[in-house]
Amino acid sequence: MIVVFVGTAGSGKTTLTGEFGKFLEKNEKRVAYINLDTGVKTLPYTPTVDVREHITVEELMKKGYGPNGAIVESYDFLMDYLNEYVEKILELEKENDYVLIDTPGQMETFLFHDFGVKLMENLPSPLVVYLFDPTILRKPHDYCFVRFFALLIDLRLGATTVPALNKVDLIRDLEKIKRYLEDVEYLSARLKLDSSMQGLLAYKLCKFLPEVSPPVRVLYLSAKTRIGFDELETVAYEHYCTCGDLT
Amino acid sequence: MIVVFVGTAGSGKTTLTGEFGKFLEKNEKRVAYINLDTGVKTLPYTPTVDVREHITVEELMKKGYGPNGAIVESYDFLMDYLNEYVEKILELEKENDYVLIDTPGQMETFLFHDFGVKLMENLPSPLVVYLFDPTILRKPHDYCFVRFFALLIDLRLGATTVPALNKVDLIRDLEKIKRYLEDVEYLSARLKLDSSMQGLLAYKLCKFLPEVSPPVRVLYLSAKTRIGFDELETVAYEHYCTCGDLT
Repeated sequence: MIVVFVGTAGSGKTTLTGEFGKFLEKNEKRVAYINLDTGVKTLPYTPTVDVREHITVEELMKKGYGPNGAIVESYDFLMDYLNEYVEKILELEKENDYVLIDTPGQMETFLFHDFGVKLMENLPSPLVVYLFDPTILRKPHDYCFVRFFALLIDLRLGATTVPALNKVDLIRDLEKIKRYLEDVEYLSARLKLDSSMQGLLAYKLCKFLPEVSPPVRVLYLSAKTRIGFDELETVAYEHYCTCGDLT
Repeated sequence: MIVVFVGTAGSGKTTLTGEFGKFLEKNEKRVAYINLDTGVKTLPYTPTVDVREHITVEELMKKGYGPNGAIVESYDFLMDYLNEYVEKILELEKENDYVLIDTPGQMETFLFHDFGVKLMENLPSPLVVYLFDPTILRKPHDYCFVRFFALLIDLRLGATTVPALNKVDLIRDLEKIKRYLEDVEYLSARLKLDSSMQGLLAYKLCKFLPEVSPPVRVLYLSAKTRIGFDELETVAYEHYCTCGDLT
């Protein structure tokens, strides 16, 4: 089965791909690793497929591109190899228990560029794990943002998306965060107290969340302590068996 | 008043900031330009404030960072200067008719990093123009994605966000696109025909759009032909006068 790690630069996709892969291998699973990041310097795993064989951000910058232009250009360039990647991944999916996909450093490259969208369209029931960082959770409306952002990834990529709070080893009061992320009524009650336009918008959005969101669990992960790895494996397995129902 | 251009790398933020500024100056408006992109190589306008005075992505890469790490690190570094930037922008807002803010090349840096979120929190009623590219509109559910993405920017930054289709000079059938973007009932009817999970999610989300979205116009812009510049100026003016009602 195919697990795709999506998240902003610095959210921990690459480290988690490596650590979760080692965890699976220790449990005697066959694992293939795919690196889709043209900008990464070093990887903590040995990729079976690596886009840097074709192009890197650094070599484009040497030709005169700025960093942003080079990132976009690298994926424009990779479009010629898209079918080749799809075929390789489909093959690896047959030969392995898990294919772990580490996506571009900048999340928007995967969500907004045809390379990411068309690759995902051609994969059989991939599970997307949307990694977000505790630092973006400052106010009640930030929790609403995260839940809807996961929905928009699902909508954009056409793949079941599980929101996953990463780096939980850094968090003191995880129970409070869990309540905000999982108990929509509790979150709504807090949002109702915020009379700003932002609070009002979050309140309206969250009210609809149970009606629009597929039943999805939130994961709590740490690559450092391997917290949540068992649950991630269970969710991936259930997704594979039931194709989507992750209550 | 403050107009903030937000969008993915390549969506045309920098070119539009320059061209719209020239357009305003020609109409005898006083305009200040703010560059927040640590990765841009050249600008088509003369910035009054430029984050590259403090740090650039390229200099961090020379110190050994990869491109993604360097982008994140540059905004971590700029946090020390955040108050200074806020003060400068507030001052420029008093002295000028317009302060145009050109945001980081990678949109996620602005939406997910404290630098962007905290800067916006401290500005008085900024108007966000969310630029998206015609290439991301391939299927009916992509229109739903764009409308909700604009809402999530509003939610994240706490600022009225106008979705703006950029590069309209490249589009053949603009009327069809306009109908999908503006006529939610028409879009819903098309989404209902898509029986995939993705189609169903888009249908459910769009059904709620009129209830959750503030009344906002969609803009159609081209920096090349200056299509839509009059309307952008009107929307900015109305936002400033009425603080948010952009029906």
